[in-house]
Amino acid sequence: MAKQISFGDRVLAATGEFGPLCVGIDPSREQLAAWGLGLSAVGAERYALSMIEAVAGLVAAVKPQVAFFEQFGGRGMIVLERILSDAQDAGLIVIADAKRSDIGSTAAAYASAWLDADAPYRCDALTLTPYLGVGALKPCFDAARASGRGVFVVARSSNPEGVVLQEATAATGRTVEDQVLAEIAAVNGEIHDGSSLGPIGAVVGATRTASTFDLSTMGGAFLIPGVGAQGGTAAEVAARFSGLDTRSLLVNQSRSIASVGPDLGQLREKVLAEREGLRIALAAS
Amino acid sequence: MAKQISFGDRVLAATGEFGPLCVGIDPSREQLAAWGLGLSAVGAERYALSMIEAVAGLVAAVKPQVAFFEQFGGRGMIVLERILSDAQDAGLIVIADAKRSDIGSTAAAYASAWLDADAPYRCDALTLTPYLGVGALKPCFDAARASGRGVFVVARSSNPEGVVLQEATAATGRTVEDQVLAEIAAVNGEIHDGSSLGPIGAVVGATRTASTFDLSTMGGAFLIPGVGAQGGTAAEVAARFSGLDTRSLLVNQSRSIASVGPDLGQLREKVLAEREGLRIALAAS
Repeated sequence: MAKQISFGDRVLAATGEFGPLCVGIDPSREQLAAWGLGLSAVGAERYALSMIEAVAGLVAAVKPQVAFFEQFGGRGMIVLERILSDAQDAGLIVIADAKRSDIGSTAAAYASAWLDADAPYRCDALTLTPYLGVGALKPCFDAARASGRGVFVVARSSNPEGVVLQEATAATGRTVEDQVLAEIAAVNGEIHDGSSLGPIGAVVGATRTASTFDLSTMGGAFLIPGVGAQGGTAAEVAARFSGLDTRSLLVNQSRSIASVGPDLGQLREKVLAEREGLRIALAAS
Repeated sequence: MAKQISFGDRVLAATGEFGPLCVGIDPSREQLAAWGLGLSAVGAERYALSMIEAVAGLVAAVKPQVAFFEQFGGRGMIVLERILSDAQDAGLIVIADAKRSDIGSTAAAYASAWLDADAPYRCDALTLTPYLGVGALKPCFDAARASGRGVFVVARSSNPEGVVLQEATAATGRTVEDQVLAEIAAVNGEIHDGSSLGPIGAVVGATRTASTFDLSTMGGAFLIPGVGAQGGTAAEVAARFSGLDTRSLLVNQSRSIASVGPDLGQLREKVLAEREGLRIALAAS
């Protein structure tokens, strides 16, 4: 197999060409109903294939939400295998949003599922949560590094219920959020894969309040939820992530795009409009 | 459908009869190799069916680790559907260890996958992690309550990497671990399903240091990892959880049992020995 281009370099190339828009592929109960599709693995597959067709060649990345396939059991997960593969074949950076979290041989099994070169779920990056410690996720970091893939560890989520935990103060004097970011920075600092952007990214919500951590030292990409239907705006993203290379930002939007319905032409128009809105807001910052 | 017996009452009945031993079903790469099974969905299925046969009628509960099925893609997850169902049919309480974590409609999709009455993955309880906030997991709590199932939210994991986060101090003055336990207690306090044991349990490692939270006020069951191969002992469990109704404890062991190899007779002997060891240690506390 030819040597992979590093995850960081692929992100930089894709966002440099298309801007920061990452489109969520979310065949939720509500979205399937809104598109007139069945609440089934087949419905989820049709939804996802339409979304991939709509965004291919227009945006840097897609983020299929794994839970919306998992809800249909093993058949849903077989559909997900195909969707991830098709999205990669369409030239998109594919972020599997699974928020997995475990330790030791279990973390290694998640790496086998999502991050190894021969993983059944073929994606470019996987989201992880750090409740069991950033260090516990090392098997996933190692697998990503070896296969040229990436991970995004949730540091600050976009929902209010997470604040009490994420703003708690660790023994290091940092908030939990900043502690997670600092530990990610340390891991990226040890990785020299030739890219200016390391393989360990962070999920940081658009609606987050400022923290004392200098995001420019994190050394990886940022996956930014909360824009659009969740209430965050492109201007907020521009303000909160100002001073960073905008090519390190992936701003996820899903419902705000899918809400136009399943018509391919209307979807592509909406994607282009959201893409330009983000690009203008970030260029002005 | 007949009204379900509540999750809490099923746990109390099972642990009252068999004691606190919960057997992990972990078809990891290492365990499959040790048993001479293929690193495949078929190998995982054979492993899991043997473990279910070995423990049926001897212990209260089993805990299949979802990652070890997920590593085989959609085919592995179809095997998991069968394993969960077979274990329930064998009269075991089945705890799917998936450590899922998300918000809003995504948390609801995980509930559809694991906790709704017609969920494709038929289990009695699901493990969750709270990095995005205990409150964000409400769709899973609601689904468990409605279907007579349970959840276990990780409060204190058994690995050292989680300490810096789990012992951070929240704005409430509590550690993160205790904050999670307090929020679980509040949810259990609102649920009146007729059982003395609410449906929201906690994962609390056997090797945990003492915290200030009075575990007897949590109102749900405890799932306790870290005993056996991870270094924790039955005596430590007895000391750390002293004063609690021992029927609210589920002590997970996996490698310490499976290490005897695939012979059914030897497995059942080992299960009985570990079961009695735990029962004696807890009775002495």
